[in-house]
Amino acid sequence: MALIKVHGIPLSGATAIVMICLAEKGVPYELIPVELAKGEHKSPSFLSKNVIILHTVWLIPALEDGTITLFESRAITRYVAHKYKGTGTDLLRHDKIEEAAMVGVWTEVESQQFNPPAVKIIYQQFVAPVKGETPNQSIIVESVKKLDQVFDVYEARLSNSKYLACDSFTLADLHHIPYIYYLMKTPWADLITSRAHVKVWWDNIAARPSLLEAAQGIDEFAHFSMNRFQFGSG
Amino acid sequence: MALIKVHGIPLSGATAIVMICLAEKGVPYELIPVELAKGEHKSPSFLSKNVIILHTVWLIPALEDGTITLFESRAITRYVAHKYKGTGTDLLRHDKIEEAAMVGVWTEVESQQFNPPAVKIIYQQFVAPVKGETPNQSIIVESVKKLDQVFDVYEARLSNSKYLACDSFTLADLHHIPYIYYLMKTPWADLITSRAHVKVWWDNIAARPSLLEAAQGIDEFAHFSMNRFQFGSG
Repeated sequence: MALIKVHGIPLSGATAIVMICLAEKGVPYELIPVELAKGEHKSPSFLSKNVIILHTVWLIPALEDGTITLFESRAITRYVAHKYKGTGTDLLRHDKIEEAAMVGVWTEVESQQFNPPAVKIIYQQFVAPVKGETPNQSIIVESVKKLDQVFDVYEARLSNSKYLACDSFTLADLHHIPYIYYLMKTPWADLITSRAHVKVWWDNIAARPSLLEAAQGIDEFAHFSMNRFQFGSG
Repeated sequence: MALIKVHGIPLSGATAIVMICLAEKGVPYELIPVELAKGEHKSPSFLSKNVIILHTVWLIPALEDGTITLFESRAITRYVAHKYKGTGTDLLRHDKIEEAAMVGVWTEVESQQFNPPAVKIIYQQFVAPVKGETPNQSIIVESVKKLDQVFDVYEARLSNSKYLACDSFTLADLHHIPYIYYLMKTPWADLITSRAHVKVWWDNIAARPSLLEAAQGIDEFAHFSMNRFQFGSG
């Protein structure tokens, strides 16, 4: 059987969660780096015909599994977790309806509540300087305030539950990895470290081999961008 | 067996998709209206103890099914579609792995690509005037431009597929209902009507009994807000 192919940028958060998910499931794959700078993600040749109608960053990451081609990182991880439910980490808790329902709830909380402000902070802190833009402090302040409220809810939840959906590590936790990893490298790491249960939760996640494996690519990006940021704002 | 309880505001898009989903599955439920104005959604008494740690609008809508209490509308619809897979409309295409995967992809497209700009337009057009705010035209222009790109992709997709995920109506289509219903009442309805395949797709959806049933509550809100808007901006 042909290997699964992941088209993406190892340094992007969305690609990283797909790679971490495949590592958690122990599923081998071939990574096909896409160079955004060259516009390869807009080229009809890089993916099979059924998705070339789609364009721009929607295509990053994409997963090819035989005749199936998927995009949108959270749809890809759910597909992988479902298809390989018998191997590796049980990321969806299929056999326990209440836990499975909670995986659904907390993956949506990540998507709707955590992700939007987190993306804004990471963009202003790491991406804007690389693009020669001045970080917008009012966007940062507003997003930090929103995340502060989000983590208050997480702190209460994690005082009753080892992980977000249940006492096991699931997709709901996994989807947070890249952006919390980046946040920990900003002046707002205390959003995590100042909350006892959130800190223990993150410490447990940060020790997972799947994260350590992905961290090299993430670090390259973070270090590159932070160096640029220091020069850019100095 | 006790009826499922839906806590929500019939006029909110998020509550509407839960109600439409339950109608598509033919599952009876009890609607428990929550009056935001009275702050009932922040009251510990209105939901069971396992969710009172959560606060503000995260709780709208919530679904209680026996001992399980869920929030986040897209998690609720997936739970309902999964639990009642044997009855009503097959919203997840469980038995066809490729179609099921595409339901996952296109529900994420709705959540990540369609919803953010659609929410901004609806807010500026209908909600801001009710709150005594002047609609921000630059937010509207930027969001319409983004939606224009999104619907270009939909048009291409729907030229090959009757519905977004496959040739059957699924959750991926259902999640679009409230905000497209509202968009059709704005000056930007041509985002939908100017595209041949998108228009046919929406016409098919708009004829579903589940939508017509929900439309009464939606219309009350839309008419109320549009009247206010006309006064407010006149």
